Amino acid sequence: MASITDVAKRAGVGIATASRVINGTGYVSEETRAKVQAVIEELHYVPNELARNLQQNRTNSVAVIVPDVSDLFFAALLKEIEYLLRKEGYKTMLCCSDGEQTNEEAFLDMVNRNLVDGVITTSNLLKQGSYAEITRPVVSIDSILSDDIPMVCANHKKGGKKAAEMLVQAGCRHIFQVRDTVTQEIKYREKEKEISTKLFPFVERHIAFEKAVKKAKIKYHERLSLGIVDAEKYREQAREVFAKHPDIDGIMATDYAAIQYAIVARSMGRRIPEDIKIVAYDGTDAVNLFYPEISTIKQPIEKIAEEAVKLLLKQINQKPIKKKRITLPVQVIDRYTHLTNK
Amino acid sequence: MASITDVAKRAGVGIATASRVINGTGYVSEETRAKVQAVIEELHYVPNELARNLQQNRTNSVAVIVPDVSDLFFAALLKEIEYLLRKEGYKTMLCCSDGEQTNEEAFLDMVNRNLVDGVITTSNLLKQGSYAEITRPVVSIDSILSDDIPMVCANHKKGGKKAAEMLVQAGCRHIFQVRDTVTQEIKYREKEKEISTKLFPFVERHIAFEKAVKKAKIKYHERLSLGIVDAEKYREQAREVFAKHPDIDGIMATDYAAIQYAIVARSMGRRIPEDIKIVAYDGTDAVNLFYPEISTIKQPIEKIAEEAVKLLLKQINQKPIKKKRITLPVQVIDRYTHLTNK
Repeated sequence: MASITDVAKRAGVGIATASRVINGTGYVSEETRAKVQAVIEELHYVPNELARNLQQNRTNSVAVIVPDVSDLFFAALLKEIEYLLRKEGYKTMLCCSDGEQTNEEAFLDMVNRNLVDGVITTSNLLKQGSYAEITRPVVSIDSILSDDIPMVCANHKKGGKKAAEMLVQAGCRHIFQVRDTVTQEIKYREKEKEISTKLFPFVERHIAFEKAVKKAKIKYHERLSLGIVDAEKYREQAREVFAKHPDIDGIMATDYAAIQYAIVARSMGRRIPEDIKIVAYDGTDAVNLFYPEISTIKQPIEKIAEEAVKLLLKQINQKPIKKKRITLPVQVIDRYTHLTNK
Repeated sequence: MASITDVAKRAGVGIATASRVINGTGYVSEETRAKVQAVIEELHYVPNELARNLQQNRTNSVAVIVPDVSDLFFAALLKEIEYLLRKEGYKTMLCCSDGEQTNEEAFLDMVNRNLVDGVITTSNLLKQGSYAEITRPVVSIDSILSDDIPMVCANHKKGGKKAAEMLVQAGCRHIFQVRDTVTQEIKYREKEKEISTKLFPFVERHIAFEKAVKKAKIKYHERLSLGIVDAEKYREQAREVFAKHPDIDGIMATDYAAIQYAIVARSMGRRIPEDIKIVAYDGTDAVNLFYPEISTIKQPIEKIAEEAVKLLLKQINQKPIKKKRITLPVQVIDRYTHLTNK
């Protein structure tokens, strides 16, 4: 395989000049550039990018941390982030935390070992402050890692309120929600309910939902989400919930959980929306796999990815960031499952 | 930040010795090792992995090429591959081809630039022979890239035959299948039907299915899949198909397409399984999002990932490979949608 020395020799230039052409750095006359380029093609020269990375101390790679790639919300987000990074010349290092603290720690360690130029994380299982210590730029989606680390999320407060209003207006008399959670969040909630929204904006959806239901003086119950993609486990939970509260007639949960509750309701002979109304949350492709069509509060997944990538690239390229907290509007997808009784 | 020179100096050893301890190579006495380790901890020394990679000419990264991460089949496969690679100390470089030849080319170029130690690909949009030219180990899932490149797939022939038998035995009189495809495969099929199964084992499922239906002397039609995850586009196709062939009463398609056909059938007032029977193919989590529960031919996704990772690591570690073609059994998941009329 041809080396940069071979290229320089054959083109009759110095190694520094050949390097400038190859790396696109510094001034080289058009004539010399053309000559070197011709030799590169002639010799099929392939630069050793590892060497180049070391020299420039960058890898053109970004670590993207997600809890579970088989969760359609994270899959959609990852798809969009990978696409946007690729368009900008960055590779995506996929890091699945599987909901395990030790995995997330190992990924951050990788960042400190200079293997990526930055991190976009959708997971936050570590002690508060862990991300602030790492040596490369970070952007967070849906959790607050430190005062300085930029964060993007949907307007969950509005989303939760709207979901409650839809069920209340549809005439529900006993409304139920599945509350999303993370291990750490549970811990914090036990201590002091307020802290959790300061760490995890998504919690605002649950608080706003509960508040709106109670304000309408409607019976309310909740359960914690299982935090995993497991249809059978959600169905078990749903069977228990329906056994304990047979009069539940309104449900709010993320798409996946909502569909499992709906399937259990249907298998018990309950009609949707006549007997039980549903408003799902997230608006992933999961809602396109259930019939009847599910009403849902859609998170702006593409826009979230776009803002996260923009914020990361600004940091990598040492450009100023004006706004460190970006909250994007949710969208109400009005379909069938929350319609009023006919 | 402490350098290896600092470590060596402080520990009172040579740089070569410090390097042997850090990289775990060569002989170092227990005493010296302990001394160097203590200094590493004391100085918070973090090895520059880029430098180490260059020296060892490896990156401990593997490129995983998938067409679309929001497709639940590829998401499940990717999840498993990332997990297995992580367990073995490898990072996953996610490469989404979006079904575009140019993207797949760019990923292979990255391999040649020494940025990954190997490739697992589920995509094959390039000219036959392209993968055989690259300089690092490759494993393919579900397509034959060259005589030498190891390949893992499910026993699609059996899967296709079984799906047809299920629909025939259920009493269907007009059976329809959605044939999976890739751009190149269409091209080949136009020229010579035989070639395609030599490149893409999954085509055997469609051939076996068609053969079994025709052998039973049952009316048969087919359409090509859209090759994308797009509920509305599949529903359009389904509406067209049902308008043209209103007597279709048996359908085989991958999970996602099968569910869209089922939703259109339901929205037209057809009952499942009384009026239309369905056997899906793949057995992804998509089938857990539809009700009634769909019968499906399940691909052994976890086992496919396991064999692919094993075959890649053997090549990376220069171990012999006994079997270059691994075909794994499919599983019949007997549920509700293909049951006989009641």
